[in-house]
Amino acid sequence: MKRIYMFGEGTQDQKALLGGKGANLSQMKALGIPVPAGFTITTEMCLEYYKNGGKNTQELLDDVKTYVKKLEDETQKGFGDKNNPLLVSVRSGAKFSMPGMMDTILNLGLTDEVVEAMKKKTGNERFVNDIYRRLIQMFGEVVLGIEMKLFNKVIENIKEQNNYADDTDMTAEDFAYIVDEFKKIYKKEVGEDFPQDPMKQLYMSIDAVFGSWDTPRARIYRDHNKIPHDLGTAVNVQEMVFGNTGENSGTGVLFTRNPKTGENKVFGEFLFNAQGEDIVAGVRTPLDLETELSVKRPKLYQELVDILNKLEEHYKDMQDVEFTIEEGVLHILQTRTGKRTAHAAVKIAVDLEKDGIITKEEAINKVDTAQIDQLLHPIFEDSALEKAESVAKGLAASPGAATGKVVFDSDKAAQMKLEGVKVLLFRKETSPEDIEGMIAAEGFVTQLGGMTSHAAVVARGMGKSCVSGAGDVTINEEEGYMKIKGKTYKEGEFFSIDGSTGKIYPGKITTKLPEFSNEFETILEWAKAVKQLGVKANADNERDSKQAIKFGAEGIGLTRTEHMFFEDERVTNVRKMIIAENKEEREAALEKLLPHQLKDFKEIFKVMDDKSVTIRLLDPPLHEFLPQKDEVPEVAKKLGISEERLLDAINNLHEFNPMLGHRGCRLAVTYPEITVMQVKAIIQAALEMAKQGIVVKPEIMIPLISTVEEYTYLKEYVIQTADELIKEAGVELKYLVGTMIETPRAALVASDVAKEADFFSYGTNDLTQMTYGFSRDDAGKFLSEYEKEKIIAHDPFQSIDQEGVGQLVDIATKNGRAANKNLIVGICGEHGGDPSSIEFFHKTGLDYVSCSPFRVPAAIIAAAQAKINNK
Amino acid sequence: MKRIYMFGEGTQDQKALLGGKGANLSQMKALGIPVPAGFTITTEMCLEYYKNGGKNTQELLDDVKTYVKKLEDETQKGFGDKNNPLLVSVRSGAKFSMPGMMDTILNLGLTDEVVEAMKKKTGNERFVNDIYRRLIQMFGEVVLGIEMKLFNKVIENIKEQNNYADDTDMTAEDFAYIVDEFKKIYKKEVGEDFPQDPMKQLYMSIDAVFGSWDTPRARIYRDHNKIPHDLGTAVNVQEMVFGNTGENSGTGVLFTRNPKTGENKVFGEFLFNAQGEDIVAGVRTPLDLETELSVKRPKLYQELVDILNKLEEHYKDMQDVEFTIEEGVLHILQTRTGKRTAHAAVKIAVDLEKDGIITKEEAINKVDTAQIDQLLHPIFEDSALEKAESVAKGLAASPGAATGKVVFDSDKAAQMKLEGVKVLLFRKETSPEDIEGMIAAEGFVTQLGGMTSHAAVVARGMGKSCVSGAGDVTINEEEGYMKIKGKTYKEGEFFSIDGSTGKIYPGKITTKLPEFSNEFETILEWAKAVKQLGVKANADNERDSKQAIKFGAEGIGLTRTEHMFFEDERVTNVRKMIIAENKEEREAALEKLLPHQLKDFKEIFKVMDDKSVTIRLLDPPLHEFLPQKDEVPEVAKKLGISEERLLDAINNLHEFNPMLGHRGCRLAVTYPEITVMQVKAIIQAALEMAKQGIVVKPEIMIPLISTVEEYTYLKEYVIQTADELIKEAGVELKYLVGTMIETPRAALVASDVAKEADFFSYGTNDLTQMTYGFSRDDAGKFLSEYEKEKIIAHDPFQSIDQEGVGQLVDIATKNGRAANKNLIVGICGEHGGDPSSIEFFHKTGLDYVSCSPFRVPAAIIAAAQAKINNK
Repeated sequence: MKRIYMFGEGTQDQKALLGGKGANLSQMKALGIPVPAGFTITTEMCLEYYKNGGKNTQELLDDVKTYVKKLEDETQKGFGDKNNPLLVSVRSGAKFSMPGMMDTILNLGLTDEVVEAMKKKTGNERFVNDIYRRLIQMFGEVVLGIEMKLFNKVIENIKEQNNYADDTDMTAEDFAYIVDEFKKIYKKEVGEDFPQDPMKQLYMSIDAVFGSWDTPRARIYRDHNKIPHDLGTAVNVQEMVFGNTGENSGTGVLFTRNPKTGENKVFGEFLFNAQGEDIVAGVRTPLDLETELSVKRPKLYQELVDILNKLEEHYKDMQDVEFTIEEGVLHILQTRTGKRTAHAAVKIAVDLEKDGIITKEEAINKVDTAQIDQLLHPIFEDSALEKAESVAKGLAASPGAATGKVVFDSDKAAQMKLEGVKVLLFRKETSPEDIEGMIAAEGFVTQLGGMTSHAAVVARGMGKSCVSGAGDVTINEEEGYMKIKGKTYKEGEFFSIDGSTGKIYPGKITTKLPEFSNEFETILEWAKAVKQLGVKANADNERDSKQAIKFGAEGIGLTRTEHMFFEDERVTNVRKMIIAENKEEREAALEKLLPHQLKDFKEIFKVMDDKSVTIRLLDPPLHEFLPQKDEVPEVAKKLGISEERLLDAINNLHEFNPMLGHRGCRLAVTYPEITVMQVKAIIQAALEMAKQGIVVKPEIMIPLISTVEEYTYLKEYVIQTADELIKEAGVELKYLVGTMIETPRAALVASDVAKEADFFSYGTNDLTQMTYGFSRDDAGKFLSEYEKEKIIAHDPFQSIDQEGVGQLVDIATKNGRAANKNLIVGICGEHGGDPSSIEFFHKTGLDYVSCSPFRVPAAIIAAAQAKINNK
Repeated sequence: MKRIYMFGEGTQDQKALLGGKGANLSQMKALGIPVPAGFTITTEMCLEYYKNGGKNTQELLDDVKTYVKKLEDETQKGFGDKNNPLLVSVRSGAKFSMPGMMDTILNLGLTDEVVEAMKKKTGNERFVNDIYRRLIQMFGEVVLGIEMKLFNKVIENIKEQNNYADDTDMTAEDFAYIVDEFKKIYKKEVGEDFPQDPMKQLYMSIDAVFGSWDTPRARIYRDHNKIPHDLGTAVNVQEMVFGNTGENSGTGVLFTRNPKTGENKVFGEFLFNAQGEDIVAGVRTPLDLETELSVKRPKLYQELVDILNKLEEHYKDMQDVEFTIEEGVLHILQTRTGKRTAHAAVKIAVDLEKDGIITKEEAINKVDTAQIDQLLHPIFEDSALEKAESVAKGLAASPGAATGKVVFDSDKAAQMKLEGVKVLLFRKETSPEDIEGMIAAEGFVTQLGGMTSHAAVVARGMGKSCVSGAGDVTINEEEGYMKIKGKTYKEGEFFSIDGSTGKIYPGKITTKLPEFSNEFETILEWAKAVKQLGVKANADNERDSKQAIKFGAEGIGLTRTEHMFFEDERVTNVRKMIIAENKEEREAALEKLLPHQLKDFKEIFKVMDDKSVTIRLLDPPLHEFLPQKDEVPEVAKKLGISEERLLDAINNLHEFNPMLGHRGCRLAVTYPEITVMQVKAIIQAALEMAKQGIVVKPEIMIPLISTVEEYTYLKEYVIQTADELIKEAGVELKYLVGTMIETPRAALVASDVAKEADFFSYGTNDLTQMTYGFSRDDAGKFLSEYEKEKIIAHDPFQSIDQEGVGQLVDIATKNGRAANKNLIVGICGEHGGDPSSIEFFHKTGLDYVSCSPFRVPAAIIAAAQAKINNK
């Protein structure tokens, strides 16, 4: 049994055996990168430690001795050798990074004897005393559990007595004193002297690392993160290097490419005679790596650049690297894939492909779909943002930055927009009635509601910024002010919001539009060529449709006809339809809506030439179209009816659970004349466009069925109305009829439905609500608690619940396809734009996803990634 | 190929081939019952007719001739023979009874020549003319489509000219004239004379029957009723018999036993010289069969009684029989199983078993479970009911008759009850706050709400009468009156209601209590011995539990703890818990609730000694416990807080879709202290009772889970709390922990849940709501339309939807059992008391159903029937 691996003996794939850190260090070494020498004790030895009753076996202790010898040979130094001492660090390193375990002990190998010899040899007494006191302190705390404050007290006293502002003020003598005091503390607490045998220091440290695997804190962390308890941790023993031994030493951090722009040029900072922590802590101002190092140490710089190329080639990505130069010798301490902006991510991926380092598929996989929003929406100017301070934070409901004057009323927002004023709409919550104000505003904030609230969904559809569920904001609409954490802000004051972070700022922050770079176009083209899943857009009008085309949508997967019902002139006729007391009155009102719908559809068909357009028939409950009680007098007058009659209508349409009420196809069953009007508008529009040579592919979608009979009942009306018009026109026109699958029952009887339907489109928002029994408008109250207690892994309204809701999608798809092999299956819920959900839909074998136009590019890339990662 | 069957050649099982009517007539004949002779042309010939382009094949026509000859031989009469004419009827008869098809033509075989000869022979000119004109009329209308009004006009003219009040006033001469006129009409409309060839009459009639199978009306009927179009209809050709040829003839209808009491004695009516329709139409007053026939024709009577015994023995049930005596010869025209009261049904079933005619299992199967309610609830006195007239009708929500003074307010109801006044509570809708008024009232009526509204559920639980959704009733609670169809009724007026019919009557109607007969006890004992499914009751307190035991429940399947929260003193503490601003305040309020819950549980456990009691932890959303806005001042005072704070609490707890909101286990996750208090009360009560020697079997049920994590999170609290108390007490106590399965997701992940749970109990009310996406409070609006349009076959809240909701029950049961073979599986939704649902639960293999105590007896019988019918 191999208990220990020298760095270079393992590879990055052996994380289970060597831990993440050990595997990576070993890999670097194997690549010939100058990593400080060391070895890794395997995770198996950790399990062995516990099996052996909480101590290491003699075999391991013997092996450690052997490997220390190997380390001495490699470094040409001796562990405890006062003339040429080998100092080492000991670090834990499990398969998964895990707070709660012992982290690091530095400078092992120092003893009184070694220290005295080093002082003489280096002439740097202060440095040597400092690293010795650090060893005693870390060892005392971490290995033996001595209280940290005992050590700190000593340092504080010295600083106080001498009026030192900082640790850097301390002298060699101060540290010598501290070393003595620390030794006393150690003796008092432990009952014996600080060990002067380096091997004893090492053995005790290894014990401490293994022991820290099973502390309550570590166990709780693993339970919470579902990490098994039987993995164990590895131990890394590595030679110490110091960048602060003089002007021939130094330390730096760098990115192999520019992480903001993606430019292929090393980007980093460097300091001579410094430790890494000096850069990180900001104690000294670091200097530009290139100007500093390439000028002063060109040979060393070239050596570094060669190493960086090697690292990029191996890891196939831009790297974030830490290095130290000790006495003119370069040591790489760490490399990892570097974080970057979306813009840089795309450029780097394309450049790496062009350089032949990665394939197109690997390039696609490098793009973090979550970042793509940054490329499509306005962002704050960095300089302006630095000065701003946010006063509240809500949910990051729809990405992008926006700034404008605050208004609390939708009508006022529309009016101010007309006057040329940019506004942000702040509302307790929004409803379809706010639509004009939402069109006018730069962005929205809501006090209530979650990631799939009305405001959030509309915002994503429009590509506008939205922060929802900002609980700290209390809006008093009538009085025209809001309170945030005790402070009052009036209507008309400037505010700025960032829908990508959920932050809300008082005042104006300049925004800038992102660029749609060539590299991004390239990646999108590659992704389109690779992906299997179709990507369509949800679009309700001409503007959305153009946006959809621009972003690469292959069709429209969802047109919500009701969004067309809210504009001012139309809503009056919609209301007339609702309050109609018989079929004739209702049909008269519908007759007036017909030309509007006709116009809308013609515009959409024209834009979508040759692409499919799926149109959902009227879906929401009728009461959504009726006014609030305070608007009743005005609206009643407009409708030419008594207030009493309008109030009666409002009361009659009240529902206890509107989400489960009289809406969707249920409305259509009660009032088939609405369906007839809508189908007339769709088919007539299609015929007119067809006559103009436009290729029209309408797909008529019946919402919210739970029985096959609802579907067939309405399909009859659709087909009869459509076929009559087509026959009359004498024009060739093909259309499809299908349904939303958005109730659990519809999914369960999918086989029967599929026999009658041309297509299914999963409405996963409603399906999630009903499968869990969670109202998305109300669940916010407890879902946060649920996430905290790990009762749910993520908000199921954002990322599809594969186990439950996904099971229904899977069942319905399989059974539907078995019953009708030509069935087209897609999804048009919010999940259609969520990358992890997209992977699930790919695996389930759906034909397409449909999402807001602004989410289309990310969806295209996610679809390609799903294909690549599930071959 | 056999195209035609003589009566007697087939059996009652051959309905597909011979049609329902033909198969039954054939069966009777085969039993030796004197049925008028005849034959049946098979349904296959109908299909042949269509295959042959809408006409009969020569082979069939030849066969018909052959069978007419056989009929002549059997009857010793000749078809068209003027000396001894054979007259026949032709009737259609499909497998399923089907309006929209041709029904009947009588008296075929009459021609001018035959008529003249018959007149001479019988001397009854009027009779012969009458039957001839009927033939021409029916044949003209049915076979040739002549408009009915042309014939009716002739008769009307005659009656007008002679000032006749009735057809019976018409003379032989009048009918002779009519025959002539009818012939003229026939000739004018058809273009040829009425056929004087009896075989031509017969062929044309057979054509007409087959032709009527494929009319649009018949097709629509079949589509609506899901009857296949390719069954075809049979044709029955049968000898005519006449009970009105003189005093040696007559006609009667009878039940073989008394249909009201079940007494084993023939019960019927008879008239000499009359046709069956004379009795049915009430033209003459029929006489008591026994006194009339047994006295005047003892031999004939004995012959009849022997036949009746034979029929009962064969059909193994009480029969409803029609017969005719023609010239002293007895003919049985029809027999079918007789309708009866619940009381009679039970007695007859038990008697038949005692007489050795049927087995115990067959006896159980004879009881119509839908009727059993009649045996448990008060009913109106017949004599009193006859005089009453209902003014409105709602849903028959909970059976039983009730009478009392109308009140519109629950508090007033409670107060009047205290004063000794019987009251009926009329409310727009009820909520848990009405509970005291509901306890006080004899019965309830609600203006809104369906079969599973709060009022309906509570009423069934209490065994009280309830009419829900009485849309014609408009209640003005404040003014203390209601309007029904324009008429105003004041508080305090007497009303009566029947929850078995949904009818509402002004005034007082005397009610009587039903008897729990010996025979009913017998049937219940038999059913218990046979059934496999356990039957438990839903019971929330001592009173319900006693009722449950009385009616034979084997345990309590559901105790709803929240029902205990509404009584006056308690609700204040519940409200204190709700408005608590921190855990300490909340626990203090809970501490005060504990003794109440403890007392409730002790009472229940005592009654249920040795039987299981399943207790559901708090389920409804908290806002249900808060007052209406108009009660805020009073309640705020009681709670010692500001009105503003109470209003804030009400607003904060408002939900858009409370059914999908913060309730059930979701509440418990947020406030585990509620769970802890409830578990303490349950276990402490159990321990105290156990010390008294009571055998306690508590089962603690966690409601509304949709993830296994919710369940395990709360189970931890339950077990920790319970085990601590048990350990402290040092008493042996076993308890179970399980969960409701009432969200689709819970059903989908049942396998995981089952690993952690001792039992499942399906909450099919919520499961139905979520699977369909129907709010039961709102769906009333469209479900009636749905039933009308056959979009749903029945209200899924009454009878389980086997295809969708049932599929989830089936999946969850199979997967749950596979994961945990000891899993107990039951159902406690409203469907637990519905017979057809019970059959489904039996087939699905559930361990038990649980329903309102008053539904337990019917459930026991339904469970036995399910076992018998699914061996």
